[in-house]
Amino acid sequence: MRILISNDDGYFSPGIEALAQALRAYGEVTVVAPERDRSGASNSLTLDRPLMLRRAPNGFWFVNGTPSDCVHLAVTGMLDVVPDMVVSGINLGANMGDDTIYSGTVAAAMEGYLLGVPSLAISLVSKNPQSFVAAAAIAAQLVARAQANPLGRVLLNVNVPDLPLEAIKGIEVTRLGRRHKAEPLIKGTNPRGETVYWIGPAGGAADAGPGTDFHAVEQGYVSVTPLQIDLTDYEGIDALRAWLA
Amino acid sequence: MRILISNDDGYFSPGIEALAQALRAYGEVTVVAPERDRSGASNSLTLDRPLMLRRAPNGFWFVNGTPSDCVHLAVTGMLDVVPDMVVSGINLGANMGDDTIYSGTVAAAMEGYLLGVPSLAISLVSKNPQSFVAAAAIAAQLVARAQANPLGRVLLNVNVPDLPLEAIKGIEVTRLGRRHKAEPLIKGTNPRGETVYWIGPAGGAADAGPGTDFHAVEQGYVSVTPLQIDLTDYEGIDALRAWLA
Amino acid sequence: MRILISNDDGYFSPGIEALAQALRAYGEVTVVAPERDRSGASNSLTLDRPLMLRRAPNGFWFVNGTPSDCVHLAVTGMLDVVPDMVVSGINLGANMGDDTIYSGTVAAAMEGYLLGVPSLAISLVSKNPQSFVAAAAIAAQLVARAQANPLGRVLLNVNVPDLPLEAIKGIEVTRLGRRHKAEPLIKGTNPRGETVYWIGPAGGAADAGPGTDFHAVEQGYVSVTPLQIDLTDYEGIDALRAWLA
Amino acid sequence: MRILISNDDGYFSPGIEALAQALRAYGEVTVVAPERDRSGASNSLTLDRPLMLRRAPNGFWFVNGTPSDCVHLAVTGMLDVVPDMVVSGINLGANMGDDTIYSGTVAAAMEGYLLGVPSLAISLVSKNPQSFVAAAAIAAQLVARAQANPLGRVLLNVNVPDLPLEAIKGIEVTRLGRRHKAEPLIKGTNPRGETVYWIGPAGGAADAGPGTDFHAVEQGYVSVTPLQIDLTDYEGIDALRAWLA
Repeated sequence: MRILISNDDGYFSPGIEALAQALRAYGEVTVVAPERDRSGASNSLTLDRPLMLRRAPNGFWFVNGTPSDCVHLAVTGMLDVVPDMVVSGINLGANMGDDTIYSGTVAAAMEGYLLGVPSLAISLVSKNPQSFVAAAAIAAQLVARAQANPLGRVLLNVNVPDLPLEAIKGIEVTRLGRRHKAEPLIKGTNPRGETVYWIGPAGGAADAGPGTDFHAVEQGYVSVTPLQIDLTDYEGIDALRAWLA
Repeated sequence: MRILISNDDGYFSPGIEALAQALRAYGEVTVVAPERDRSGASNSLTLDRPLMLRRAPNGFWFVNGTPSDCVHLAVTGMLDVVPDMVVSGINLGANMGDDTIYSGTVAAAMEGYLLGVPSLAISLVSKNPQSFVAAAAIAAQLVARAQANPLGRVLLNVNVPDLPLEAIKGIEVTRLGRRHKAEPLIKGTNPRGETVYWIGPAGGAADAGPGTDFHAVEQGYVSVTPLQIDLTDYEGIDALRAWLA
Repeated sequence: MRILISNDDGYFSPGIEALAQALRAYGEVTVVAPERDRSGASNSLTLDRPLMLRRAPNGFWFVNGTPSDCVHLAVTGMLDVVPDMVVSGINLGANMGDDTIYSGTVAAAMEGYLLGVPSLAISLVSKNPQSFVAAAAIAAQLVARAQANPLGRVLLNVNVPDLPLEAIKGIEVTRLGRRHKAEPLIKGTNPRGETVYWIGPAGGAADAGPGTDFHAVEQGYVSVTPLQIDLTDYEGIDALRAWLA
Repeated sequence: MRILISNDDGYFSPGIEALAQALRAYGEVTVVAPERDRSGASNSLTLDRPLMLRRAPNGFWFVNGTPSDCVHLAVTGMLDVVPDMVVSGINLGANMGDDTIYSGTVAAAMEGYLLGVPSLAISLVSKNPQSFVAAAAIAAQLVARAQANPLGRVLLNVNVPDLPLEAIKGIEVTRLGRRHKAEPLIKGTNPRGETVYWIGPAGGAADAGPGTDFHAVEQGYVSVTPLQIDLTDYEGIDALRAWLA
């Protein structure tokens, strides 16, 4: 089995290192990840400049681009054979609910999925994540299962509570919850005396009831949400037709 | 009516200028757009640095950030009153099918929608767009209709064929089509003799039959697709549960 | 006379606009400037990506690169004829003493000089500059003089006190002074709770006695310093030879 | 002895690794280097955003900034004690003649010098450098000599021929030579069909006679040039006064 690993925290992140180490038991692992932290990169692709591939002493490849660039570059040109799976992470922080729209971790997996490869994004739900080994074991478990019993073309978004493996209660299949609106801008002054604005933190969980990713993780379960990428609001089509008539 | 306008081509783009001019007849227009071309930015947010607002001689505001940053900044802190509508564009090029995942134009509208504002993204389908006036008139028509008859919280993705207004056959409500996989990487050498890689062009239309955005535009109609942002694959939940059992 | 104008504050800066307007009386003016604020860019050149030229409605060209890139691009490929002079500015803030090492404004002029063109950098000495018209008049006066009486291959660094033209006492030829060491780092926390560091402000004037640029401007004079670019410490060569023997 | 090491090729470069390894025998080494390749950064400082410090598994610190940022940050705030020496490199490629104006490697050393620390930049003269061990041994030799016999506040620019240590003929104290004008722009087309421009390669050696850095390296010697940072053209002051009179 050929496994392509990427992330959005950069190739030097402890999360990607733990992931690569855990997955080597299940196949031939290639790591292609951004040269620097690209958290919040979403699905951005670099179209106005060429990319370069460099190799770190530990064998990881790094790219002067986004998470989507990394997977795109690996699958459409760098690798001789299309990988059997793309695994992205382990992200330092949650990717639940609306986070999936902004996340570079999810985007890297989505790029694999768009290119026809079963893909999985995995994130540790914590502001200061510790349990990389547990999360890597979860990823390995899912990969092993996919190896034994292929699931077809899927895109899985996995969020792991930041707990030791033995404290995790199990795996739940979930839907994405929803967050409250983001916190307001943070206005400040830079040392040159100019007004500057920081994007505020994400909102708290709004739709976080049973069945959601927020709820599963809150209860100590791993959340696995199957994703698709058709943004069409099918239920809104008739109302829109009426409105336009 | 208060209208916030943004785009991903930069505040200096002819598309945003045509849009602002056309919408001024319908309300108070504020333009907040990226200081430089951010095509392909997707929903990326700038989290590792503060943003700055500057004002051009024509009154447009520009920001050293992404399309999503611009709308986020305007709605969550810069504007005294939340706008009644966010309009993003006019993009120089199509945003149909899977393009919506990567598009900064769509992302700017999506950011408005996520912050509770009815939002609309508009794109001209052409590699070398000419009919900005026609597309701006279409945008104005939709905004006027929303003013007369509010449609609630919607996110509309509008693609306009690059034709004179009188040659456009009408408006069709569509679903997103799908593209073929992207073209392969383009490998080259930079002047320093180093190997570099350009992301290849988007694939051609794959799912482009009647009912899709691709089909409508191909037939000379304006395509309007209602979007939503829940990526959950509801139909895949049961299969995934069975697989994990 | 063909005059190439650039700066480091960006093509939209009031300083470059005032400069272009004032110099049009003396020749054919072409403006090629960075698309965004590149203050502090020094002589950096963009070697890892290609550059693009775009044109603003007012006819100014802008480039997704550094001040040095702009002049380099214009002189080595874009312009049909090598310009007779490069003028860079009007910078919003002083470029005196050690500032010349870091300044993008000076770098743009230095690039012209390195490519064989007489060049001039002009800066307004103020944190909140007002007297663009006065500074532009000074620039025009120097250009007119160079037109009437060519000075050969020179690189002039001009600093103008932020005063109305009639309050300026005259022009003094100076040497560069020296600043005290920079102020310490400013340590802070970003909204994600991470420690961040801002570069501190430049130090105050240390060597600012009669004859220096600091002194001239302080006394209400325009300072003009002839620059050269050979960094060799000729006086240190013998001591170094002895030390290595 | 406390030694601060930086470079412009990035903290992952083989050059900085060889340098750090060789200098550990002579004191306490701290490495603070850019997170990505910043060749051509010159003395640019990052003024519009805050910087972050991260630590690699090998103990090296890396910064999302320029070479000058790295040294500035280390000396003015990060390190408890001002280092006794700043060493920058080993650069993958020459920094001779006019290169010193553009070089990030030289800039990192210059920043140390400006902050009062004896500093040294070291570069391997080759398009595809091999002899990192030899160059590191040269650096170590110079540091050892400075330890035994302090040279005061100096800024040394060292260029090493890419030869095995035993093939190097000795050390020569030199002045900077000069290059011919840069090669013209390289005009091309990107995959989106847009015209793009690459900065052309540096010119060949123009002033490369005996006594210059170019000549010494050409003859198989290590070139050591003492640098200073006063750009004033003292010899041009009288002519300029006459011209302005």
